[in-house]
Amino acid sequence: MATDQAQDDASDGDTYDRFEDRVTRISNVGNAAGILRWDQEVVMPDEGTPARAQQLSTLSSISHELLTADETGELLAALEGDDLADEEEAVVREVRRTYDRETSVPQSLVEEISATASNAHPKWKQARENDDFGHFAPTLEKLVDLKREYANHIDPDDDPYAVLFADYEPYIDLETAERVLERLREELVPLIDAVQDSDAELATDAFAGQFDDDDQEALARDVLDSLGYDWERGRLDTAPHPFSSGTQFDARVTTRFDESDLLGSITSTIHEFGHANYTLGLPDDGYATPLGEARDLSVHESQSRLWENHVGRSRPFWEHFLPIARERFPELEDVTPTEAYEAANQVYDDNLIRVEADELTYHLHIVIRFEIERDLVNGNLEVSEVPDVWNDKYEEYLGVRPETDAEGCLQDIHWSHGDFGYFSTYSLGSVLAAQLYAAAEADRGPFDDAIREGEFDELNAWLRENVHQHGKRYVTPDLIERATGEDLTADHFVEYVSGKYGDLYDLEGYGRR
Amino acid sequence: MATDQAQDDASDGDTYDRFEDRVTRISNVGNAAGILRWDQEVVMPDEGTPARAQQLSTLSSISHELLTADETGELLAALEGDDLADEEEAVVREVRRTYDRETSVPQSLVEEISATASNAHPKWKQARENDDFGHFAPTLEKLVDLKREYANHIDPDDDPYAVLFADYEPYIDLETAERVLERLREELVPLIDAVQDSDAELATDAFAGQFDDDDQEALARDVLDSLGYDWERGRLDTAPHPFSSGTQFDARVTTRFDESDLLGSITSTIHEFGHANYTLGLPDDGYATPLGEARDLSVHESQSRLWENHVGRSRPFWEHFLPIARERFPELEDVTPTEAYEAANQVYDDNLIRVEADELTYHLHIVIRFEIERDLVNGNLEVSEVPDVWNDKYEEYLGVRPETDAEGCLQDIHWSHGDFGYFSTYSLGSVLAAQLYAAAEADRGPFDDAIREGEFDELNAWLRENVHQHGKRYVTPDLIERATGEDLTADHFVEYVSGKYGDLYDLEGYGRR
Repeated sequence: MATDQAQDDASDGDTYDRFEDRVTRISNVGNAAGILRWDQEVVMPDEGTPARAQQLSTLSSISHELLTADETGELLAALEGDDLADEEEAVVREVRRTYDRETSVPQSLVEEISATASNAHPKWKQARENDDFGHFAPTLEKLVDLKREYANHIDPDDDPYAVLFADYEPYIDLETAERVLERLREELVPLIDAVQDSDAELATDAFAGQFDDDDQEALARDVLDSLGYDWERGRLDTAPHPFSSGTQFDARVTTRFDESDLLGSITSTIHEFGHANYTLGLPDDGYATPLGEARDLSVHESQSRLWENHVGRSRPFWEHFLPIARERFPELEDVTPTEAYEAANQVYDDNLIRVEADELTYHLHIVIRFEIERDLVNGNLEVSEVPDVWNDKYEEYLGVRPETDAEGCLQDIHWSHGDFGYFSTYSLGSVLAAQLYAAAEADRGPFDDAIREGEFDELNAWLRENVHQHGKRYVTPDLIERATGEDLTADHFVEYVSGKYGDLYDLEGYGRR
Repeated sequence: MATDQAQDDASDGDTYDRFEDRVTRISNVGNAAGILRWDQEVVMPDEGTPARAQQLSTLSSISHELLTADETGELLAALEGDDLADEEEAVVREVRRTYDRETSVPQSLVEEISATASNAHPKWKQARENDDFGHFAPTLEKLVDLKREYANHIDPDDDPYAVLFADYEPYIDLETAERVLERLREELVPLIDAVQDSDAELATDAFAGQFDDDDQEALARDVLDSLGYDWERGRLDTAPHPFSSGTQFDARVTTRFDESDLLGSITSTIHEFGHANYTLGLPDDGYATPLGEARDLSVHESQSRLWENHVGRSRPFWEHFLPIARERFPELEDVTPTEAYEAANQVYDDNLIRVEADELTYHLHIVIRFEIERDLVNGNLEVSEVPDVWNDKYEEYLGVRPETDAEGCLQDIHWSHGDFGYFSTYSLGSVLAAQLYAAAEADRGPFDDAIREGEFDELNAWLRENVHQHGKRYVTPDLIERATGEDLTADHFVEYVSGKYGDLYDLEGYGRR
């Protein structure tokens, strides 16, 4: 009955309006939940959790019901037969995709995964504390089984890991991701070997010392000022795990301060600026529709890493920023821009922990996780084999072997959430950052002089024009191709790190010189 | 069809569960909206408004749809024929009431009122700025008409003002409110006359001077510490118009600081503490149902005013608190508790502005608004007559005549929101505060010594036991009767102010001595 109604209305202009109204309601519920999560991480009193959990669960179930309601399917079906404008078609495409995925998985399975993941978290935490993988293993096995079942509901004909990967990165196919990661492994293993063999001595202690938290916060504001963050649409706070969230009207940044790690708070703030700056570049008039929402995880991460690494870890940035930092911290008076640059780019020898990794070795941490979780989900690896395989790969790729599982396969939270397929988007983000930065420089000329002057407008204008303003209008491969003239490729990243680290560590066969 | 289904299920225990699930969802959406409003007032960046407005509007319409859905009516009908526990009956009673009201008003009228009020606000603001009542008058007339129509939908047989009043105070009938306000007018007009004729000179300049904002904030935290505010479930921030909001798990306070008004920030903080403290006393296990939600505006205001006036403006409080205040502000060293007490209780001569009024004259401001809006809504007064009637009443009740409408009938925001019937809850709150405080002292003995020692636990325990823990379990008259053994009465308030101000101003025929 309702179906006929929707199809009868298909020729009316108002079918799209009714569809868009539903879409914006769903987005607004999601954005409200985003504020509640920000609040929970940043300002909520400790004992607020039970109420907050209920509020978020209610919003999540309302959003799910609005999306998976029969009426959504009817409106989609009616519109897909219609002659729509390009932008409308993009909105329909995006909603169709999530509609199909959410309606294909039984709610009981979604709830079982959610409940299992809730219970998995304390088990993982305890296992890590006690270095006891066996304590976590049965839960991990259950999660892998459930997520495989989940993938099977969505697409029984596809490789289950590919289906899970598409939850995080819907439009980059798994083969592309595999090819990129394979390339990173091939290029980075020998490059890191060369770095580790190098006799070059970098000024790694340029930021040694203790730095007052309040002054670090003032400096984090200086960083954001300097990069052009729009305070009328944002704010800076602290959170235990820094993140950015919000919409084009209100995109907030969080960071954290460690008195012995000034450099960490600066680079983390720049990273989160990159995320927020993408959000702020989404078009106002697309608010609460896919046209005003960010493309997926890899593109988001490309923005944070472009700013963190290509800008924030560049030599001209430190020529610009060191005088500003010295005003907050006079003890940096004798540090030179070159020393700051070297300190910001040192490659560590004992690479066991992903979140402490440098820009170069980071990706081998990702490759290892990617290979293991892919094999786990696809049934080519048993959970019980994970610790040994993990340690073997660390030895092979990074030349270090974890002595405990706590600093081995238990170090990351992701699997305890049932997040299989997430990790690779970090590396894809770095690869895309390099590709976009190269394209921007090819268009507008090198940015080094501008960065040295603290001028970021032209770089940002290029990103606005080629990435941000499009929201989800184009699928990711099209967005990348339009912005850079190429498909996703690791070439630019490889060239970037070979040049940068070749110079820094004076490596034969590498370097820009 | 669905109706039969619900009624068939009435004998199942799960009808109530399904009903409660719906009720908690509605509450959780409302509580989420509460967080979004707190965020908007306290931390949201300036340009976040367009997105926030959409988010709040979406949550409000979802909440309305959940409440007014056929299924809600079916569940209510099924449960009302059922044999329910007392607490369940109370939940059904509360939901029935809002269901009946919200379903009786056409959504188009609700939207028209909302749109008219949105447009009214800038008109009122401009009218006040230009002292031009005529600029606001047509909009005010439209709002009065629309709200009369609204009332007529809810109950065509009742006096429309009584219907509107019940939006804010559902269980105290309008006759009771009128009787209380009439009594206040009769008692306070001569008392204020006597105060104004008094030769007593109070130490009104005890808190004269400039007080640093940061130190005021530290002192506001001292106030909250001293009163026993639970920081694990709350926080203090600043907002342009101080308010409290939240749930029993997370009840937050805001205040504001004016360097020339230290006393104002202290009393405002205590006032908001009273609201939050009520919320924190609601039972955890009633969260997201009427059993864990506060009774209505008058009861809420009774809590803020009990703490602000009966505690915070008492002499023993200043004996306790002045030494604490001196630690933040050594310049208060020579101020005595009596001087502080007098400064906190001075009665002003030129009483034109409600929000600047003292504890005594305040209620005549309310009586005037109550009389005028009642006559407006019931058709006994034309909008064009409001300014003259307003000014005449000020002259008659308070002995002052506004020279402009800006400081006369244009001073309050409420009518521009279409809020007719709200004002009286402020005075009912004060009256109830006095009644509750007297009952608490009758039960537990005078609290003066405890307050002097900074001990508030026993007073708070009495409030928890007799007011807070009940949530909405009892209708307001029953709650009052159970707590105090009497119906709502102004007797205790009259006795309290007669005694206090009689002593302070040395008035013949008044005073406790």
